[in-house]
Amino acid sequence: MVGGGQLARMTAAAAVGLGVTFLVLSESDKESAALVTHDVTVGSHRSLSDVSAFAAECDVITFDHEHVPGPILAKLESEGVLVRPGSGALRYTQDKLAMRERLTALGVPCPRFAPVASLADVAAFAGGTWPVVLKAVSGGYDGRGVWVCESTGELEEVLAHGIPLMAEEFVPFQRELAALVARSPSGQGAAYPVVQTVQVDGICREVIAPAPGLSQDTAVEAEAMALKIAAELGVTGLLAVELFETSHGGLLVNELAMRPHNSGHWTIEGARTSQFEQHLRAVLDLPLGSCAPPEGTFTVMANLLGGTDPDVFDRYIHVMAADPAVKVHFYGKEVRVGRKIGHVTIVGGPEDDVAEVRDRARRAASYLRWGTEDGD
Amino acid sequence: MVGGGQLARMTAAAAVGLGVTFLVLSESDKESAALVTHDVTVGSHRSLSDVSAFAAECDVITFDHEHVPGPILAKLESEGVLVRPGSGALRYTQDKLAMRERLTALGVPCPRFAPVASLADVAAFAGGTWPVVLKAVSGGYDGRGVWVCESTGELEEVLAHGIPLMAEEFVPFQRELAALVARSPSGQGAAYPVVQTVQVDGICREVIAPAPGLSQDTAVEAEAMALKIAAELGVTGLLAVELFETSHGGLLVNELAMRPHNSGHWTIEGARTSQFEQHLRAVLDLPLGSCAPPEGTFTVMANLLGGTDPDVFDRYIHVMAADPAVKVHFYGKEVRVGRKIGHVTIVGGPEDDVAEVRDRARRAASYLRWGTEDGD
Repeated sequence: MVGGGQLARMTAAAAVGLGVTFLVLSESDKESAALVTHDVTVGSHRSLSDVSAFAAECDVITFDHEHVPGPILAKLESEGVLVRPGSGALRYTQDKLAMRERLTALGVPCPRFAPVASLADVAAFAGGTWPVVLKAVSGGYDGRGVWVCESTGELEEVLAHGIPLMAEEFVPFQRELAALVARSPSGQGAAYPVVQTVQVDGICREVIAPAPGLSQDTAVEAEAMALKIAAELGVTGLLAVELFETSHGGLLVNELAMRPHNSGHWTIEGARTSQFEQHLRAVLDLPLGSCAPPEGTFTVMANLLGGTDPDVFDRYIHVMAADPAVKVHFYGKEVRVGRKIGHVTIVGGPEDDVAEVRDRARRAASYLRWGTEDGD
Repeated sequence: MVGGGQLARMTAAAAVGLGVTFLVLSESDKESAALVTHDVTVGSHRSLSDVSAFAAECDVITFDHEHVPGPILAKLESEGVLVRPGSGALRYTQDKLAMRERLTALGVPCPRFAPVASLADVAAFAGGTWPVVLKAVSGGYDGRGVWVCESTGELEEVLAHGIPLMAEEFVPFQRELAALVARSPSGQGAAYPVVQTVQVDGICREVIAPAPGLSQDTAVEAEAMALKIAAELGVTGLLAVELFETSHGGLLVNELAMRPHNSGHWTIEGARTSQFEQHLRAVLDLPLGSCAPPEGTFTVMANLLGGTDPDVFDRYIHVMAADPAVKVHFYGKEVRVGRKIGHVTIVGGPEDDVAEVRDRARRAASYLRWGTEDGD
């Protein structure tokens, strides 16, 4: 796995049970996965020689993120390296305009969009409607890739970065959902139950699996859409499709990710096969595992963001003592305000109330984040 | 953790989520845990200098087995090393006669026993009843520590080894159970549901959690007994109490283990807190986690023993394809006939039938063991 973040860390834990040898290419030996993985290579995912040397040690390579440059991926493929997902699929996570164009061509519902390079372009697209969403076509600027602009001044600020941009309609969604599927090179597909995700300031804070009150029709539609995208784009491994559920119950695709995804962390405890094991099974072309939760159960996951107080372990003990059914996952990262440093999971049974379990998960995450002004 | 076997391997995976730094002292870099753990020290658990040097790197040391000599443990303790469980408790796993005497003094029901050194001693103990169980007081001979003797000739063979022995009455039990509890240095205790274990030729083959049809009274009695033993013996970490359920529904203690135990592997998928995480929480004196399975669920675990065909991975694919809900755990060990090389787990829900789930688990384990004459 190229990339040493928390996704690689949790994939490493899944590889232990699966019995496969798992190697990580990490930017430093202090990255989340590098701290716990047996076979760590330190190197840059932007260096052809580093990635090539790493790939030479592996039967298959896969990714913890979407940041390996396309030309490096194409070069490896031309040399016969099994790159999963391949450059042809990953392109749609690296170029949002290409993604929108391809999905639209496939008939997949998306927000209205257009490439823009000037205020005039944006005005022609938006026709005076506010807000307007601007997105970096590739990567971002200063760590951001999405701007919800409420005024001409805000548009000008983003345009001033001089990066390729696209405009999208602002979708007044009812809630956000995510459909997570796996697809193997042999073409086998498997779909996890559709979940609800709760985002605050563009960061995932909470996932409820399955999405409460989702109609069977909408769930099937979302799963079928994700499986179709995976097949049409030739994805191997996991595909997470972030969705808006509109006020009329319709679905629009927001983003795609082709790797284990924050919206799937609940599967470690909540599904028969975790997304991390599933990703490995898919990229190794092994038969896929069951995505089903044990009957009658549901799961709530809350992300753990860093607060201003770095001593998170002092509070960990209290969380453990207060709610012995909370499962905390730490990523081994230094605490910084707003940084994802872990997550907590609670599995509920038939007698449990979703709202009460959400409250417990939030309370645990919030207590661990103590000290932040915006701690909730 | 001293010892690099599969228990350390699975504890390493649990440490990832818990966010604690996990080091292993392993006899070689090819041991089960050494293959997947980031921080591996190669050394002997029988060498004071190796164990001391390892302990100097750790806040707390604990064990994957009971084979560290008592004098080494006592020496470390005298130097202030936190050894959990401590030598005072571990002694009862290293000296079966001391264990029987202590448990009897505590009023814990055990099979009748006596130290024996000769045929005359055995005859005086058994009074002509067959079979007679002989046990090595400490360790064993040629990998064996228990002999069920049916004749004087068999007794003579065992006595000829010249090792300290004890005799025990043969218990015509109805079935075997195991009670797994955790105890922290602060004295907190937690008990997993009592399970049924199925042994063949002295090797655990199957665990059903919770034990089907066990009366509430017997379950409470077993849990209370295990918690009492843990407290009285000063155990820190896990204590597994192997039990006989007699034909009259009474309980007798068979063996003790003070570490993660084969009878608790089901907890990885089947309980809110796995035994491996629980052991770490206990030895680190963190609050203990919930031992409860998600409501309405039960779990079957079947051990995977090596067969004559080493190509277990070829068959792994078929097992995955045949039953996507089977979770296979491989230990990274070379396949040898009869060796524990992994286990499989299936979690059942309220609508599932225990017999059917047992059958699926057995089928998976049996298929993976292909090629063995006594494959079942």
